[in-house]
Amino acid sequence: MTTVTVLGLGPMGHALAAALTAARHPTTVWNRTPGKENGLDATVAGTAAEAIAASPLVIVCVRDYAVAQSILDAEALKGRTLVNLSGGSPRQARAMADWAAGNGIDYLDGVIMATTDAIGGPDAALFFSGPADVYETHRSTLAALGENARFVGDSAGRAAAFDASLQDMLWTSMSGVVHMFALAKAEGIAAADIAGEAKALLGFFPDMIDVLAEQVGSDRYPGEYGTIGSAAATMDHVLDAIRARDLDNGVLSAARAEAQRAIDAGHGEDGFGRLAAP
Amino acid sequence: MTTVTVLGLGPMGHALAAALTAARHPTTVWNRTPGKENGLDATVAGTAAEAIAASPLVIVCVRDYAVAQSILDAEALKGRTLVNLSGGSPRQARAMADWAAGNGIDYLDGVIMATTDAIGGPDAALFFSGPADVYETHRSTLAALGENARFVGDSAGRAAAFDASLQDMLWTSMSGVVHMFALAKAEGIAAADIAGEAKALLGFFPDMIDVLAEQVGSDRYPGEYGTIGSAAATMDHVLDAIRARDLDNGVLSAARAEAQRAIDAGHGEDGFGRLAAP
Ligand SMILES: NC(=O)c1ccc[n+]([C@@H]2O[C@H](COP(=O)([O-])OP(=O)(O)OC[C@H]3O[C@@H](n4cnc5c(N)ncnc54)[C@H](OP(=O)(O)O)[C@@H]3O)[C@@H](O)[C@H]2O)c1
Ligand SMILES: NC(=O)c1ccc[n+]([C@@H]2O[C@H](COP(=O)([O-])OP(=O)(O)OC[C@H]3O[C@@H](n4cnc5c(N)ncnc54)[C@H](OP(=O)(O)O)[C@@H]3O)[C@@H](O)[C@H]2O)c1
Repeated sequence: MTTVTVLGLGPMGHALAAALTAARHPTTVWNRTPGKENGLDATVAGTAAEAIAASPLVIVCVRDYAVAQSILDAEALKGRTLVNLSGGSPRQARAMADWAAGNGIDYLDGVIMATTDAIGGPDAALFFSGPADVYETHRSTLAALGENARFVGDSAGRAAAFDASLQDMLWTSMSGVVHMFALAKAEGIAAADIAGEAKALLGFFPDMIDVLAEQVGSDRYPGEYGTIGSAAATMDHVLDAIRARDLDNGVLSAARAEAQRAIDAGHGEDGFGRLAAP
Repeated sequence: MTTVTVLGLGPMGHALAAALTAARHPTTVWNRTPGKENGLDATVAGTAAEAIAASPLVIVCVRDYAVAQSILDAEALKGRTLVNLSGGSPRQARAMADWAAGNGIDYLDGVIMATTDAIGGPDAALFFSGPADVYETHRSTLAALGENARFVGDSAGRAAAFDASLQDMLWTSMSGVVHMFALAKAEGIAAADIAGEAKALLGFFPDMIDVLAEQVGSDRYPGEYGTIGSAAATMDHVLDAIRARDLDNGVLSAARAEAQRAIDAGHGEDGFGRLAAP
C-alpha cells in the first residue's frame, strides 16, 4: 500500500483522507488550522513540508490554486508526485503543471465532480490529466477516492477543461431550475407539482444532448428538431411570464440575446446547436 | 366520435389534425395559406368561420395568441368549445379566457410540451386548464393528441404557467448545454466525449430537483448539499475558463450576478434553492 499525504482537511480534503485510510493506505495529513483530523486514522504532521516528506504521493485539496501554491514547498516536493484536487480553471492547472515541471515534481491535475459523501464510492466522478505514466503509477491508489476515477489525457489542463465545461452546464441548468421554481411559485403552482413535470421533461435531455453533440461534432446544424428562431419565440413567452410576475429575468434574457445574435447573423432557421459554434 | 375542427396547419396543427383523424374523429381543417392539408383525411373549409361552424369542438394552433385572436370569429364560436394550443404566456391565456367568456364560448387553454413527431403517442405531454366540466366533456377526444394529456386546474392561465416554468428550465438548461459544448470544443474536447460525461451528470438531476423542491416547498434552505457561496466560487472558475477562450459569458455571468445578490443579502451559506425565494 502506497503511503499518501493529504494537504488540506476542509470537508473535501477530510473525505479524501478518510477514503485513503479506509483503503488501508498509510496516510499523513496536514491542515493550516490544527485539529481538523478528527476521526481520521492518520499521522498528523506539524508543517506542510513535513507532511510532504512523509510520502511519495502528495494530494493537495484546499480552497483554490492560489492557496495550494502558497502551501506547496518546491524543495520538499522534488522527486515526488503532486496531485492537485483543488478547484480551478484549465489555465490555472496549466500554470501549476509548468511550475511543477520547473521544479522536478511529477504533476497530475485532478477534479472532483462529487459531493464529500460520495467520495470513495461508485457515484464519485474524478478526472485526472497529466503524464500517462505518472497516472499509471498511482492509478490504484487514486481509485480509492472514487470508483469513477478516470484519466482524460496528458495535457495538464484537460481535467479542468472537462470540469469547467460540465460545471458550465450544471450551474446554468441549476439556475434554470431555480427560476422554474420561482415562476411556478409566483403562479401558484406547488414546488412538488412542477418538480414532477420537470423530472419527466429531464427524461428527454439525454437524447437532446446526443442531437446537439452530433450537430457540434459535425459542425452541421439542421433545424429539424427545432430552430433557434422557434426557441427565441418560446423564450419570449417565458420572459413575458417572468416580467408579469416581476421576477429576475437576467439569465433567460442573456440566453435570448445570444439567440438574437445568431438570428441576426442569419442562423434563425438553424438548429440550437449552432450557438456552440464560434 | 366527436367532430373536430383544427384551425392552423403549420407543422404542429398538421400533426394535431393527423392524430385526430388517426383516432377516427371526423375532422375539418382550415389554414390561412391553402394547400397545407396534404396527407390529411379531413374536410377542408374555405374560411375559418366555415370551419368553426362544422364542429362543436374547435382547436386552434397557430403562431401565437395574437394570430389566434385574429382568425377567431366570436359569432361563429358562440356555444362551442374552443381549445387554444398556440404557444403563449399565462397572461395571454387569461385574456383569451376572458374574451371567450364574454362571448359565450367555452374555453380551454392548452400547451404542448412535445415535438410534432410525438403527437398522439406516449411521449407527448399536453396540459389543459379551464372549467373542469368542459375538459371532462372533451377529455377522450383530447386524449387522441397524446397519451399524457392532463388537466392541471380550472384557472385559465395554469396550463401556460406550467409551460412557462418548464420552458424556463428547458431553455436556460439548453443554453448551458450549448455553452458546455462551446467551451469543451475550445479546449479541444470532442463533442461526443463531453456528451457522455454530461449524460452521466444528468443522472443526478432528478435527486437535485427533489432537494430544491423540498427547499422551496418548505421555504427553508439548508446549505448541507452545497451553498450559494460555493456555487459562486465554482462559477468563477468556469467564467475564468470561458473568458480565457474569449467565449460568450452572458448567461453564466447573469447567473453569477444573481448568486452575488443573494450573498450580499446575507444568504451565502444558504442552499441554492434560496434563489427561488422572492
Ligand atoms: N466540498 C465539495 O463538495 C467539493 C466538491 C468538488 C470539489 N471541491 C473542491 O475541493 C476543494 C476543497 O473544498 P472544501 O469543501 O474542502 O472546502 P474549501 O472551503 O474550499 O477549502 C477548505 C480548505 O482550504 C484551506 N484553506 C483555505 N484558505 C487557506 C489559506 N489561505 N491557507 C491555507 N489553507 C487554506 C482550509 O484550511 P483551514 O481549515 O485552515 O481554513 C481547508 O483545508 C475546493 O477547491 C473545492 O472546489 C469540493
Ligand atoms: N412545432 C413544435 O414542435 C411545437 C411544439 C410545441 C408547441 N408548438 C406551438 O404550436 C404553435 C404552432 O406551431 P407550428 O410548429 O405549427 O409553427 P408556427 O410557425 O408557430 O405556426 C404556423 C401556423 O401559424 C399560422 N400563421 C402564422 N401567422 C399567421 C397570420 N398572420 N394569420 C393567420 N395564420 C398565421 C400559419 O399559417 P400559414 O401556413 O398561412 O403561414 C400556420 O398555420 C406555436 O404557437 C408553437 O409555439 C409547436
